[in-house]
Amino acid sequence: MIVMKVALVQFAPEFGMVEENLEILEQLCADLRCDLLVLPELCTTGYQFRDRQEASAFAEDKDGPSIKRLAGIAERCGGALVAGIAEASGDQIFNSAALINSDGVLGWYRKVHLFGTEKDCFDPGDLGFPVFDLGEVKLGMMICFDWLFPESARSLALAGAHIIAHPANLVLPYCQNAMITRALENRVFTITCNRIGQEERLPDQRLSFTGRSRMVGPDGTVLTEGPPDKAALITWFINTDRAGDKQITASNNIFADRRPDQYRFEK
Amino acid sequence: MIVMKVALVQFAPEFGMVEENLEILEQLCADLRCDLLVLPELCTTGYQFRDRQEASAFAEDKDGPSIKRLAGIAERCGGALVAGIAEASGDQIFNSAALINSDGVLGWYRKVHLFGTEKDCFDPGDLGFPVFDLGEVKLGMMICFDWLFPESARSLALAGAHIIAHPANLVLPYCQNAMITRALENRVFTITCNRIGQEERLPDQRLSFTGRSRMVGPDGTVLTEGPPDKAALITWFINTDRAGDKQITASNNIFADRRPDQYRFEK
Repeated sequence: MIVMKVALVQFAPEFGMVEENLEILEQLCADLRCDLLVLPELCTTGYQFRDRQEASAFAEDKDGPSIKRLAGIAERCGGALVAGIAEASGDQIFNSAALINSDGVLGWYRKVHLFGTEKDCFDPGDLGFPVFDLGEVKLGMMICFDWLFPESARSLALAGAHIIAHPANLVLPYCQNAMITRALENRVFTITCNRIGQEERLPDQRLSFTGRSRMVGPDGTVLTEGPPDKAALITWFINTDRAGDKQITASNNIFADRRPDQYRFEK
Repeated sequence: MIVMKVALVQFAPEFGMVEENLEILEQLCADLRCDLLVLPELCTTGYQFRDRQEASAFAEDKDGPSIKRLAGIAERCGGALVAGIAEASGDQIFNSAALINSDGVLGWYRKVHLFGTEKDCFDPGDLGFPVFDLGEVKLGMMICFDWLFPESARSLALAGAHIIAHPANLVLPYCQNAMITRALENRVFTITCNRIGQEERLPDQRLSFTGRSRMVGPDGTVLTEGPPDKAALITWFINTDRAGDKQITASNNIFADRRPDQYRFEK
């Protein structure tokens, strides 16, 4: 039985205040010990970039200063963390999630489904939906709007993910409920870490983020949920073996029962 | 704008009492006028066949007596109906949904994902997820346990379905909520017609069906819901144009935004 202590920090990053946002995170996590910590999408920079140039100014690669401080947080927690950050890669910029431990970046996920004005600021993700080893546990990542596409969580689960870490900056109220379905249909743990607060950096685009960060178990049980509008550090213990077992009745295994020859995904 | 009056009849078929079940349906629908009526899975026979031989004894093809009476109901309603029935096709038996109007069967769907002991009684569906024309509206069908596999509704929606008719005999409580996600992620109308009542025809397998038949709109709104344990005839008016529009923000179209090159569906 593999029991992990998992955590998330829901908070309100202030746009452009990278140092301050990291300091808030360091304070919130000061006494935290855990195996895995999930942070929101774009948690060091804030969300609403005005254009690609602005996003570029904040984007970092694996050697960037934010990554180093996040690695420090991971080290003090005694585990790994998943943080949403703006990633620089040559001339490209991605809305990414970095899997980080005390040594630095273990792996990247680059957001595949960009939402709204993100398309003006970021390149679409080009790494697919990779899965990474945390000891014997396999971890997948997706970001915010990816939730709406069942292909995201499905790709991760079929690749073996026990846990889907899901940094988010949700502005609509639908995702939290849908994560029950995402967990159920794939028999995985999901950890959605959403932000709170507001941003209004583009004309007539006032964004209010909806909080209610959620962890859901492989049977669709909501394990724990954050408040809609307050910062919160939430921890939970999960037995990841439960996500390795896809058998739901004596004669039904949700993966073996798939019938790819009967599906058609062309428009 | 295409407005349709859609209906469902939630009731408790009695096992093996085909004549009586059809009579109940005829009575419940006596005053009904609608464009589309959805009935439960295996609504003429009941659900829990003991073995393949028993299922075979009840299975009918397009010329069967139940189909004729169902065509009569469709004729009196002035539209089409979707009914779950045991279908005979040569030596094969399927847990099927028949799309029927006054002329008889317009099309079949054969359940792709069989649940539990259904595997001992039926052949797995071999027609994929076809979509049928009702005038300018496209209708897809899936049956009960198909809900757990996101590929079912996705296949139908990508094939153009505006409405997914979903006959069911649900014994678990998860599907009703998940249908919100199925509707949202595909921007379609879903009509889940579930049965009520109990069956106990196999040792230690007492089944209680969970009712709460649901219609859901393309934005995830629960339009109407049946009671958990009572028969109900429910009607609603829907504007199917809403399911033709996959644009959800100025820059996001949920179908155009799909990234098949980034997905991997192999185990």
